[in-house]
Amino acid sequence: MKIAHVAPLFEAVPPRLYGGTERIVSYLCDGLADRGHEVTLFASSDSATRARLAPCRETALRLDPRPLTSAIAAHLSMLDEVRRRADEFDLIHFHLSHFQHFPFFEHCPEKTVTTPHGRLDYSDLPGALARWPDFPFISISLRQRRPLPAANWVGNVYHGLPLAHFPMPPPRSSSTEPYLAFLGRLSRDKRPDRAIETARRSGLPLRIAAKVGADDRAYFHDEIEPLIDGEKVVYVGEVGETEKADFLQGAAALLFPIDWPEPFGLVVIEAMAFGTPVIAWNEGAMPEIVDDGVSGFIVDSVDAAVARVGELGRLDRNEIRAVFERRFSAERMIDDYEAVYALLLADSAASPQARPRPFGQNIAASRVNGSRHAPPE
Amino acid sequence: MKIAHVAPLFEAVPPRLYGGTERIVSYLCDGLADRGHEVTLFASSDSATRARLAPCRETALRLDPRPLTSAIAAHLSMLDEVRRRADEFDLIHFHLSHFQHFPFFEHCPEKTVTTPHGRLDYSDLPGALARWPDFPFISISLRQRRPLPAANWVGNVYHGLPLAHFPMPPPRSSSTEPYLAFLGRLSRDKRPDRAIETARRSGLPLRIAAKVGADDRAYFHDEIEPLIDGEKVVYVGEVGETEKADFLQGAAALLFPIDWPEPFGLVVIEAMAFGTPVIAWNEGAMPEIVDDGVSGFIVDSVDAAVARVGELGRLDRNEIRAVFERRFSAERMIDDYEAVYALLLADSAASPQARPRPFGQNIAASRVNGSRHAPPE
Repeated sequence: MKIAHVAPLFEAVPPRLYGGTERIVSYLCDGLADRGHEVTLFASSDSATRARLAPCRETALRLDPRPLTSAIAAHLSMLDEVRRRADEFDLIHFHLSHFQHFPFFEHCPEKTVTTPHGRLDYSDLPGALARWPDFPFISISLRQRRPLPAANWVGNVYHGLPLAHFPMPPPRSSSTEPYLAFLGRLSRDKRPDRAIETARRSGLPLRIAAKVGADDRAYFHDEIEPLIDGEKVVYVGEVGETEKADFLQGAAALLFPIDWPEPFGLVVIEAMAFGTPVIAWNEGAMPEIVDDGVSGFIVDSVDAAVARVGELGRLDRNEIRAVFERRFSAERMIDDYEAVYALLLADSAASPQARPRPFGQNIAASRVNGSRHAPPE
Repeated sequence: MKIAHVAPLFEAVPPRLYGGTERIVSYLCDGLADRGHEVTLFASSDSATRARLAPCRETALRLDPRPLTSAIAAHLSMLDEVRRRADEFDLIHFHLSHFQHFPFFEHCPEKTVTTPHGRLDYSDLPGALARWPDFPFISISLRQRRPLPAANWVGNVYHGLPLAHFPMPPPRSSSTEPYLAFLGRLSRDKRPDRAIETARRSGLPLRIAAKVGADDRAYFHDEIEPLIDGEKVVYVGEVGETEKADFLQGAAALLFPIDWPEPFGLVVIEAMAFGTPVIAWNEGAMPEIVDDGVSGFIVDSVDAAVARVGELGRLDRNEIRAVFERRFSAERMIDDYEAVYALLLADSAASPQARPRPFGQNIAASRVNGSRHAPPE
C-alpha cells in the first residue's frame, strides 16, 4: 500500500520535546514501513523515520530558534506539497486536528483519512465540519467523537506503544518504599491537587514527576507548591525516558485525576507497560483505556480513589502487562490502521465516484474498533 | 463597484478592544459604502458597519467567553462562505496576513487583492508565497514590502483616519505644563525605556498612557516600573478615546522610540491629527509617515531625540494638522484604494485570461503610491 502520513509541523517526528501526536505518528510510520508498505512521511526536516521523509520545513516550529514563524503559512506550504504529490499515494493520512487540509483535498476526500489527536470540543469545529462533511475520520477513543457526532467516523484506533521499546519489565525491587505516582504537566485540568489529597489520605507518599510550563507557573506557585513537603509529597522535576521507566515501574499506582475530556492519555498505557495499575478519574477516554478492576480503577472522587488505593493489592501486575500487550501495543494499533485503510480502499474501488460516507460511517466504525469497553454514546 | 471585504475574526469591526486592522477595515467599508459602492463585509456578527454585513461568527474570537475556540476552523468556514458567494462581487479584498485564503482562491487570484496589516518578516511567508505568486498585494508602507520583494505588489496605500472622527482640534490650553507622551503597549520592542531616558535628559516630564498586557507584565515589572517616579515619569494607565485625544493634543511631542519594523503606526497619525509632532526612531515605516522637520523628527539615538526636543518650537502645529489632512485622511486612503481597484478591474477586463502580475506589479505600484517619501528599497 502506498500511504502518505502528514504530521503537524510543531514538533519533529519523533518529538524532541513533549509531543504525543508526533510519537504516535513515528511509531505508525515505522511500523507500516517495517511491514513493507511504501510510506511517505510529510514532516519537518529534523524528523527521523524508517518511512521516506518528505521534508516540509527546515526545523519543527517549536524548535526553530528564529523568533518569527508562521504556523499557518508553514502548513499551507506543506499541504500544497502533499496535494502536488497526491497521485503517488493510495491514501493520505492526516494527523492535523483543525481541518487545515480540507480546502486542499475537497475534490477527493475519499482519498484521505484524518486522525485528530486532540480534544474536539472547540466551538468552531462543528460549523467547519458541516461545510466539508465527507472527510473520513478515525477517532483515538469513542469518547473523543462526542462533540462531533456528525463527522464521517470510519474507525476507532487506540494508541499503542512498540513492544521493542517497552519490553517486559525486569522484576521489581522489593526494597523500595511504596509510593503513588503523578506524571504529566502540572496544569489545573490535570488536577495534581486531587493526587496530593488522595495520597495524603491514603497514607502513601506521592512522587510528582512533571514539567511546569510557562502557562502553569502561576497555578503551580499559588496552589501546588505550598502542598509539597519533600517527604509525603515529593516533587522530582521533569524526568527523562530512563528515569520515567523506573518512576512508573516503581509506583504502587499511577494517579490520573484529570478534569478534562482527555481523548486518550498515553501515560496511562505507559504505566500499564510496566505492570503498574492506574487509578483514573471517570473523564474522557479513561473508561475505555483502563479495565476497571483489572488494569486499575475508575473513580469519581477522592473518597473513591482513597478506597481503591487500599485495594491495589488485589490487582495482578503481570495481568496488567498482559492487558497492555493485548490492547495497547503498536503492533495492534498498526493492525487496526491497516484494517481501516483496507476498508477505505475497498470503498473507493467499489464505487470510485461515490463518496464513502454512508458505508464507511456504519460498517467501518463497527468493524474496526479497538475497544471492548465502549461506553454508551 | 461590488466589493467584498474580508476581515480577520479576532476582533469585531470596528474593534471593541485594541485592533488596528479592524479599525482601518471599518473606516474603509464605511467610506466606500458612503461613496455608493456595494460593499459586503465578511466579519464577526458583533461588527457594525454601513456596508452589508455578512456575519461569519457569533462573536469575535477574542471576545468569545467560551474557553475553546479554533481560529483555524473559524477562518476556514468564513473563507468557504466568501468563495460560495464570490460571483456576487467584482473584487474581494482580504485583510488577512498569513495567506489562509490562498487555497480558496487559487483559481482566480486576479479577482482578489490582499492588504496584509502586519509585519511580513515571518520565516514561513516567502516559501508559501512562492507557491501562490499571483495574488495581488497592497502594502501599507513601502518598508513593509521588504521581506517579500517577490510578491505581486500592485499598490501602496497608507492608512487614514476619518476627518469626521478627527475634526480640527480646539485651541490648546496654554496653562498645561509641557510634557512628552508615550502611547501604546509597554512591550520591549516599543522601547519605553528610550522614551524615559529621552524625557529625563531633555528635562520635560513623560506621561505614559499604555496597557500592560499579559505578555509584557514581566518586562514592565522588571525594567520599566522602577523608572516610574510619578513626577518626571508618570504612568497614567490605559486611556479611552476621549482621554486619548486630550492626552495627545496636550503633549509637546509624541515619542515613538520603536525597535522593530513597524509597518505603519496608527498612533503616529493620530498625534498628527491633533497637531502634535512625533519624534520617531528610524525604523519600519517611520521615514515614510513622519515628514522630518515638518510633522516631527526622525532620529537614530536618544542623543538625537534629546536634541530634537529642543527644536520642537520650530514646528508649526497647524502645519502638522494640514499634513495630516493631506496625507492621512480616510478620504485620501479611500481614493487610493479606489484607484487600485480600478487598475485591477481594468487589468482583468483587458485580459480576462491573463494573470495580472506583470502589468500590475510594475504599473500599479508606481501609479498608486501615497508616498512622497519612498525610502530606497
